[in-house]
Amino acid sequence: MNTKLPDINTEFSEWYNEVVRRAKLADHAPVRGCMVVRPYGCAIWENIQAIVDKKIKDTGHQNALFPLFIPESFLKREADHVAGFSPELAVVTHAGGKELEEPLVVRPTSETIIHYMFAQWLVSWRDLPIKINQWANVVRWEMRPRAFLRTTEFWWQEGHTAHETEQEAEEETLCMLEQYRDLIENYLAIPVFAGQKSEQEKFAGALKTYTLEAIMPDGKALQMCTSHRISQTFAHAFDMSFQDRNGNVSFPHLTSWAVTTRAIGAMIMMHGDNKGLIIPPKIAPIQVIIIPICNDKNRTEVMQYIHVIEQELKTHNIRIAIDNDAQSTPGAKYHEAELRGIPLRLEVGPRDVTSNVVTIVDRLSSAKEVVVRDSLVATIEQKLALIQKMLFENACARRQQQERIITALSDIANSIEEHRGYFVTSWCGDVACETALKEYKASIRCLRPDSRIQDFCFCCKNPRVTDIIVARSY
Amino acid sequence: MNTKLPDINTEFSEWYNEVVRRAKLADHAPVRGCMVVRPYGCAIWENIQAIVDKKIKDTGHQNALFPLFIPESFLKREADHVAGFSPELAVVTHAGGKELEEPLVVRPTSETIIHYMFAQWLVSWRDLPIKINQWANVVRWEMRPRAFLRTTEFWWQEGHTAHETEQEAEEETLCMLEQYRDLIENYLAIPVFAGQKSEQEKFAGALKTYTLEAIMPDGKALQMCTSHRISQTFAHAFDMSFQDRNGNVSFPHLTSWAVTTRAIGAMIMMHGDNKGLIIPPKIAPIQVIIIPICNDKNRTEVMQYIHVIEQELKTHNIRIAIDNDAQSTPGAKYHEAELRGIPLRLEVGPRDVTSNVVTIVDRLSSAKEVVVRDSLVATIEQKLALIQKMLFENACARRQQQERIITALSDIANSIEEHRGYFVTSWCGDVACETALKEYKASIRCLRPDSRIQDFCFCCKNPRVTDIIVARSY
Repeated sequence: MNTKLPDINTEFSEWYNEVVRRAKLADHAPVRGCMVVRPYGCAIWENIQAIVDKKIKDTGHQNALFPLFIPESFLKREADHVAGFSPELAVVTHAGGKELEEPLVVRPTSETIIHYMFAQWLVSWRDLPIKINQWANVVRWEMRPRAFLRTTEFWWQEGHTAHETEQEAEEETLCMLEQYRDLIENYLAIPVFAGQKSEQEKFAGALKTYTLEAIMPDGKALQMCTSHRISQTFAHAFDMSFQDRNGNVSFPHLTSWAVTTRAIGAMIMMHGDNKGLIIPPKIAPIQVIIIPICNDKNRTEVMQYIHVIEQELKTHNIRIAIDNDAQSTPGAKYHEAELRGIPLRLEVGPRDVTSNVVTIVDRLSSAKEVVVRDSLVATIEQKLALIQKMLFENACARRQQQERIITALSDIANSIEEHRGYFVTSWCGDVACETALKEYKASIRCLRPDSRIQDFCFCCKNPRVTDIIVARSY
Repeated sequence: MNTKLPDINTEFSEWYNEVVRRAKLADHAPVRGCMVVRPYGCAIWENIQAIVDKKIKDTGHQNALFPLFIPESFLKREADHVAGFSPELAVVTHAGGKELEEPLVVRPTSETIIHYMFAQWLVSWRDLPIKINQWANVVRWEMRPRAFLRTTEFWWQEGHTAHETEQEAEEETLCMLEQYRDLIENYLAIPVFAGQKSEQEKFAGALKTYTLEAIMPDGKALQMCTSHRISQTFAHAFDMSFQDRNGNVSFPHLTSWAVTTRAIGAMIMMHGDNKGLIIPPKIAPIQVIIIPICNDKNRTEVMQYIHVIEQELKTHNIRIAIDNDAQSTPGAKYHEAELRGIPLRLEVGPRDVTSNVVTIVDRLSSAKEVVVRDSLVATIEQKLALIQKMLFENACARRQQQERIITALSDIANSIEEHRGYFVTSWCGDVACETALKEYKASIRCLRPDSRIQDFCFCCKNPRVTDIIVARSY
């Protein structure tokens, strides 16, 4: 158990798999491509859920629950949608001891069934907007599964809204993208690029897809979440008509947006080191762990001192745990606390009790500080805030070094194997030039219309339409 | 929309279906037997979840997430379990565009897959107890679906634990039953009988099942939740061995326990009336609704007055909404608030503003009271507590009238059609006598070993072993 983790710099992928397993975040399930999210991983997800759920409700959405199963015919109503999802579907053909007349698809996403219900609820413009969210599990058959990053079953929230005007729908899409940006940058401490996806990369059935892209330490991009303007063909396919303000038949403008358990995978990759995880304080299930250093003679007084500290920290809403496993040494406990990425560790021995102090060790810097008892809470709060800030700043600094501005496809061809980063360049907007990236297993992660690297396309040299971020991706 | 509901006394079943639909709690889904839980229903479920989740964590359990799919062979490892669930299974046979080598069952409950994982995690007695909970959707193919009460897909929490000793497992089972009793009696305001199920009625694969049974206004029993001691054959079937304190190979003692969205169905039936729902204040998404009575001339001052009240109530954690739909009359709003079962309604017009008062109407008694502004919060808090208390007391009083103590099967035969209630009698413990109840579509809801109606069985007249509660059931 105490053997070293694979080296994060040279064996990033092995490091990831091992840290997920050893820190007890998740295990492989005995079902191909599926994972079991263990209590520690689940507690991180619950913290993310609480933040996102509040944001969703504060922006005027309500939660609902829609069925897991979708009639196969529903998916076929929108041509792009079914084409995009067909290869990934799990299908129920038998139920209640009989073969079903129509197979049921296990939802890969819920646009179709939710739009069917919207059509039942929507009569007049007065019923708009409809702003619904669902916390759910979804299934997309996965050939190359990795815990949190790509699993056959994953957990997410999916928001679905219908609006009277195109402008309102566009505002909604951008509003939710901004909610996600706040989550990912200010809670998960991961800097992101916000932007539109190219036509080829957008969601199957979307008019437009906005994305937040993060750059992992190995240089690959990770799509953190998406916010879509859904195609009007969906509204027509599900007969979602309503009487508008002028008494005419109209169709609503639709959006959908989601964030998934994948966010946990990004957080693991972004902030880990050779000792294990480093969990941003704002989402850490345990922010502070207290490790008693005592023997049978002084255990009572040390534990008494610790329990008073525990109560005080709880009063200040600091998430705290005590590792008082009698079978384990303090050294093993330090190691375990580091592996699990707990931001702060308090070491408390009999001399700390006598001197009325506590020793604090910071997971990020490993700095050790002896703090007098009276200033403990304030010091902890400061240190947690500082770790949160430093994680984000470190991630920003690394990303800065991962940027390479290029002018031609050959620059990508020549450097993508050794460059652990992303490329910024200009593009003509043509699919052929986008497709040329495939040879290097790279893709356009998002458009950057506001920057201007050069006046011509990196590939065909025709006039530039937009800048782009190019990278390999998870 | 404003037509009367079916009469709750003479058309209970129609009343239930209509109130679920009109109060926008749930809709039929376009998938057989499935429902869509709409925002108002979902908000009730979220309130129940918050209460239960806290209880589960406070009693030392941790949440985790297990896969939706279970390999078919897992279910077959425990003979009683597969026999119990086979007729209700939904089966995935195709995924990722191919036929699967082994079909995957959509979980009807997760004992098998969770026990498989317990076996991976469990090495020594030091790993015990394992105390896990999961919030999840489950699927049991349903031939006679009814919203909340019986649906093909439903939502629940399922707790699963493993213990070193039989006594610990028994204590766990009873501890969780007590948590549920507190939820159901003190939050949902539904009195329950707590007791053990007969051998025939216990969970497929359980050694023992404890249940909480509520008696609905139509006299039928509703199983509110169950807490099981799981059979040791499960531990053996999944090779869940561990090294015990003496260095021997041992198998853990298992429990599982669940409460489902069915609780919402019970709450609806228990407290409704001919005007609609009455939601117990402790779980009501909206505890107080404010209805402005104003015209264009005085709207500003009335709304200003209301917004100050709104802020004050929010500060006191009272869940409040304002119905300021400009299209609707106050009368229609009263009707709607009653239909939705909101415990208290505040009516605020220009004269209330002038006199610095508020008119409060109680959903349960329909009593109207004018309250001075300064005592508003205190009055609301008192009234909410009183409604909560009265709902439970009314339910207890009705249940008392639903009780019939009987001595012979013929008493059931003669009266079950007209008696809207349950029967208490004594039983020899023999399956044949239990089966005799089937002719009257009744069953033993739970055992009552501590009461003693008579010394002989209601059916065969052999010596009594235990008393029982008999009823028809949902």
